[in-house]
Amino acid sequence: MRLLIAVFPLLALVAVPSSTVRAADEPTVSLSNELVAIRDAALADDYAYRQTAHLTDNIGPRPSGSPQAEAAVEYVAGQLRHLGLEVRLEDVHVRRWTRGVETAELTDYPGQAPGTTQKIVLTALGGNSPTPADGITAEVVVARNFAELKALGREKVAGKIVAFNFPFDQRKAANGLAGEAYGEAVEYRAAGPKAAAELGAIACVVRSVSAADYRLPHTGFSAPAGIPAAAVTSEDADLIARLSAQGKVKMHLILTSQNGPEVLSHNVIADLKGSEHPEQIVIVSGHLDSWDLGTGAIDDAAGVAIAMETAQAVQQLHLHPRRTIRVIAWMDEENGGRGHDAYAQAHAAEISNHVAAIESDLGASHPLGFLARVNPQALSRLKPVQEVLQSFGANLIQTVEFSPGSDIAPLAKAGVPTLGIMQDGRTYFNYHHSAADTLDKIVPQELRENAAAMAVMGYALANSPEPLPR
Amino acid sequence: MRLLIAVFPLLALVAVPSSTVRAADEPTVSLSNELVAIRDAALADDYAYRQTAHLTDNIGPRPSGSPQAEAAVEYVAGQLRHLGLEVRLEDVHVRRWTRGVETAELTDYPGQAPGTTQKIVLTALGGNSPTPADGITAEVVVARNFAELKALGREKVAGKIVAFNFPFDQRKAANGLAGEAYGEAVEYRAAGPKAAAELGAIACVVRSVSAADYRLPHTGFSAPAGIPAAAVTSEDADLIARLSAQGKVKMHLILTSQNGPEVLSHNVIADLKGSEHPEQIVIVSGHLDSWDLGTGAIDDAAGVAIAMETAQAVQQLHLHPRRTIRVIAWMDEENGGRGHDAYAQAHAAEISNHVAAIESDLGASHPLGFLARVNPQALSRLKPVQEVLQSFGANLIQTVEFSPGSDIAPLAKAGVPTLGIMQDGRTYFNYHHSAADTLDKIVPQELRENAAAMAVMGYALANSPEPLPR
Repeated sequence: MRLLIAVFPLLALVAVPSSTVRAADEPTVSLSNELVAIRDAALADDYAYRQTAHLTDNIGPRPSGSPQAEAAVEYVAGQLRHLGLEVRLEDVHVRRWTRGVETAELTDYPGQAPGTTQKIVLTALGGNSPTPADGITAEVVVARNFAELKALGREKVAGKIVAFNFPFDQRKAANGLAGEAYGEAVEYRAAGPKAAAELGAIACVVRSVSAADYRLPHTGFSAPAGIPAAAVTSEDADLIARLSAQGKVKMHLILTSQNGPEVLSHNVIADLKGSEHPEQIVIVSGHLDSWDLGTGAIDDAAGVAIAMETAQAVQQLHLHPRRTIRVIAWMDEENGGRGHDAYAQAHAAEISNHVAAIESDLGASHPLGFLARVNPQALSRLKPVQEVLQSFGANLIQTVEFSPGSDIAPLAKAGVPTLGIMQDGRTYFNYHHSAADTLDKIVPQELRENAAAMAVMGYALANSPEPLPR
Repeated sequence: MRLLIAVFPLLALVAVPSSTVRAADEPTVSLSNELVAIRDAALADDYAYRQTAHLTDNIGPRPSGSPQAEAAVEYVAGQLRHLGLEVRLEDVHVRRWTRGVETAELTDYPGQAPGTTQKIVLTALGGNSPTPADGITAEVVVARNFAELKALGREKVAGKIVAFNFPFDQRKAANGLAGEAYGEAVEYRAAGPKAAAELGAIACVVRSVSAADYRLPHTGFSAPAGIPAAAVTSEDADLIARLSAQGKVKMHLILTSQNGPEVLSHNVIADLKGSEHPEQIVIVSGHLDSWDLGTGAIDDAAGVAIAMETAQAVQQLHLHPRRTIRVIAWMDEENGGRGHDAYAQAHAAEISNHVAAIESDLGASHPLGFLARVNPQALSRLKPVQEVLQSFGANLIQTVEFSPGSDIAPLAKAGVPTLGIMQDGRTYFNYHHSAADTLDKIVPQELRENAAAMAVMGYALANSPEPLPR
């Protein structure tokens, strides 16, 4: 059973009672009827689930530049063509990063049995340097956070392996603040290796950004630091910390991942042309690439499938929205964001015609509503959407300072109203970027709710008489 | 927070209201005072936790015949000598099984992207045959249970890899029936490979016996079937089943584990001699060997440490029980039970002097009481124990047909009253036999409760005026 405990002390909360839904100056009745039809079509449809299943079970992990990523590009393009959309593949030059051998063990530690080692479970972080094939061995110094690293100083860090042991705060995540818990902890994955390297460390391991306790390492991108970098499991981070508190600990580390050459990949861009303002664009999107450990179900095959459902529902109902609905399956969200960079560059001239952009990239659990970077004056325009989504509890709209989804961040920066689906995030980061990001993590009914939320919002933005103000 | 939902429809439940505790014919007052003192000493002591931490963090995984297992034998013997017990190491000839390479991937399946495979996460099962170093490749046939395997028949099984996909019933486990859920599912691990081999299968993979969904494989012993055998994660079992439902699936499998030669190992036997009847023996015990994937914290360093606490508490309080309390750290519980076999053989002449035997081998979560294979007429004798353990909710005594703990099963068979601590088992099997069986799974307060339960019961049985009737 999933219970929702929603506490959002830091964000403005806009909950709309159903009695206040229709503003007198808008012809919302017919729009609402359409939105209800779209909602109900999406809620009854297993299209998004079938897409997610194919992307994960049949195609599998889709790291940027991999054959699977390109197979997924072809597959999604084919499916959207089949729905009658105008589809093109837009070039994205990605770096292909490939995981190699990744093993570690503690070779010296207090109380060690003669001739034995303690295995450390870890996984390499994207973007970093390999060890030699036979690895490196060095003393480990543990820092809980950047302040502790700084306090250790170059004298105690140079020539060592730094182990960051900053824990993910599950209580925050359980209280609706998963993003905040993630943000605090992911800093150590993103910037920890660089900070360690700057003090002369020869490698860095960071505690996995997760609250799960199943000895599961979570990968992710890390700012290139010129040293080998990996994520250890929470169990292994704690083991290293406990043993280090007793005396000297040495670790042997092999990480042979490679940053390969640039490879040509693609964003999938599929337009359902607007009937009145085809030049005006509403983006519905998710990202098609994934990490390599799992099959990228919640991150983010689901997001792509949810966006595809918008086109599926609109076409199934033979609706003709005023503006163009553009489905995008972004490439390279995980490994540097070359996909959204390429889009921003290729579409620089028409950015002003983008009236809104939506991304789903927080999993596929029950949607509570949307995170919106939208002019507050425009929120009343979204009331018809909120009323329609209230039937399954997806009617919150939280205005946020940051961009809801990294692929649409460049658009947000350019002033385009952006929205992200706000999923129940209590367990998302326990699976995210790990081998356990697999199809079974998706509850079909909850995926349908997400698809309905995206479709209703996407259609409303594409068919409302006026676009949202910037 | 851990909530207890205890439902025990299949077992006789003996709950004792505190007002009925003292039978008129027994001098329980002073015994009860001693039991209260032991309980409070154990509840206040971190001795068991420190022992568990050393066995897991400093020594590590302890598979039979490994250097770590022997280091653990020496360590536990030294600790018990330090407490003033008479300690000896008794020979156990164990088979040393060593894990090798273990990888698998699906090489052919519907919808596959050209040139790609789907990785399968698995771990070899103890006792089985290796593949060649470069592995085997064969079609997979899925059976949910033995009936489905039988229905497939030799024609569809011969030359194939059988995948058993029998799920662990988490709802049973959550309702106090973890043992039953385990018993149903573990049959496929224990006997599945043999059943598959009998129909001509060339390898067998079974769904891990666990309800966790963190893509964690769970190892364990499997009856030698002459074919390679492994446990896949629940996610991978489901993936294989889903793809097989769509068409032909082939798997490439490398499992190079080896059954090595016999190695001399030991049970640790430590006596705290009885003051009146030193020849009469009460065993308190856990098993010292573990699987190799984790560090064997809940299975079963904790059990050994809990048993050690009985000696620690009795010595700390300068008590002198009538009978001998024998602390045993069993060897080879996981890989064939040579430890208890060796004990039964070496002590055949004095089995009749064993008045009771207790083992803790169901983890270290909050104890609810004891599973007891005890003459029902004798249960009233345990009322003083129940009263003393009621303060922290460990006062249930469930009489069972089977032996509570495989190491004491031979004693039970010989008529010795046997007891096992009945821990809260709702999540035990999610970690059991996996890489996630590590120290952090132990809640110090709950470990202390287990230590107190063992010490109070052990002392009561050793110091009561009369031994339990057989």
